[in-house]
Amino acid sequence: VQIALVLYPGFTALDIIGPFQVLADVPGHDVVFVAAAAGSVVDHTGRCPLIATASFAEVTSPDVVVVPGSIRDEPPQPELVDWLRDVSSRPTWTTSVCTGSLALAAGGLLDGVDATCHWARASRLEELGARYTEQRVVERGPVVTAAGVSAGIDMALTLLDRLHGRDVAEMVQLAIEYDPRPPFDAGSPSRAAADTVALVRAVLNPVADTIAG
Amino acid sequence: VQIALVLYPGFTALDIIGPFQVLADVPGHDVVFVAAAAGSVVDHTGRCPLIATASFAEVTSPDVVVVPGSIRDEPPQPELVDWLRDVSSRPTWTTSVCTGSLALAAGGLLDGVDATCHWARASRLEELGARYTEQRVVERGPVVTAAGVSAGIDMALTLLDRLHGRDVAEMVQLAIEYDPRPPFDAGSPSRAAADTVALVRAVLNPVADTIAG
Repeated sequence: VQIALVLYPGFTALDIIGPFQVLADVPGHDVVFVAAAAGSVVDHTGRCPLIATASFAEVTSPDVVVVPGSIRDEPPQPELVDWLRDVSSRPTWTTSVCTGSLALAAGGLLDGVDATCHWARASRLEELGARYTEQRVVERGPVVTAAGVSAGIDMALTLLDRLHGRDVAEMVQLAIEYDPRPPFDAGSPSRAAADTVALVRAVLNPVADTIAG
Repeated sequence: VQIALVLYPGFTALDIIGPFQVLADVPGHDVVFVAAAAGSVVDHTGRCPLIATASFAEVTSPDVVVVPGSIRDEPPQPELVDWLRDVSSRPTWTTSVCTGSLALAAGGLLDGVDATCHWARASRLEELGARYTEQRVVERGPVVTAAGVSAGIDMALTLLDRLHGRDVAEMVQLAIEYDPRPPFDAGSPSRAAADTVALVRAVLNPVADTIAG
């Protein structure tokens, strides 16, 4: 099972490392970081470069693709969108975390389809033709999208269940001691304080966006 | 606020990227990956090298230290233990995820102190003089230990609350949409099936350990 973990400039590290850690230690999995060109790719903070060992051109038939999101409100990388269109034409699990779903949508994979992304970018997803669905993980056939950043862990465990069955998924969940205990109940805009939601939305929506919008 | 994120050969990526993502975007935080020597440090899977931009010798007074764990059942890196002993003699938050607490314990920071680590390594923590405590996050003054792998996210949010107050912690929780929905309830040995616990324990405890023990 070849698993292609996508990198592009400005990706958010936890978006891709969550699924990486869930998927990488399963026997028979071949996990590869892939990008437009092999080499170092820097995350949105500038502090956490990850290394792509293969280019998109070198990975033509992955069994699973995971596309991370970015905090940046920019159009998806064209090389990534082209590659997604190509690989998803063959049987593959095409998955995303956070705004990674915008790349799937730009590639035409989510036209009129239920999907999710980071709550603060829901309108961007809809602009690209998908139907934003406020769920942690949305499965529509072999296309699986996850909500913001940390949701990639839940998505990858769901994917493990579909690939190998519940026993394997539960073993990995126990191995990474995934028994979350958030100290606060502010992880969703529907339960965080209104002030908190407004502040985070302001931070995530750059001034340029406000001007353009 | 200087935050030193520790790397050493064989670290587990999610252990350190969880806290990284919680801490890195907070204004005023200076996040640095640090290791025995600056440069690339390879994780336990061999697939996810991260880059240390500073050596231990170059980071002498961090405000926060985060030590990740490893799947490998090996003694903590001596250079790391020496450095932890040194930096913790000054005011600092010394924190760990998973078996990172074994390095704290080896440095004498947990003698007779309540602490946690990955459930499958509880006996190792006790051998080093700490009192294993089955909690997600254990705070004892400025020493904060977290359970296995994914627990670093909960730990880092707790730490944000202590550093900057609940509002900041909740903003970050919402920004990373940390509203976990594990698809199964197998993240703790107290609730996973007995077979699952036995299998994961067997995978994590190498043959050499069984022979030695």
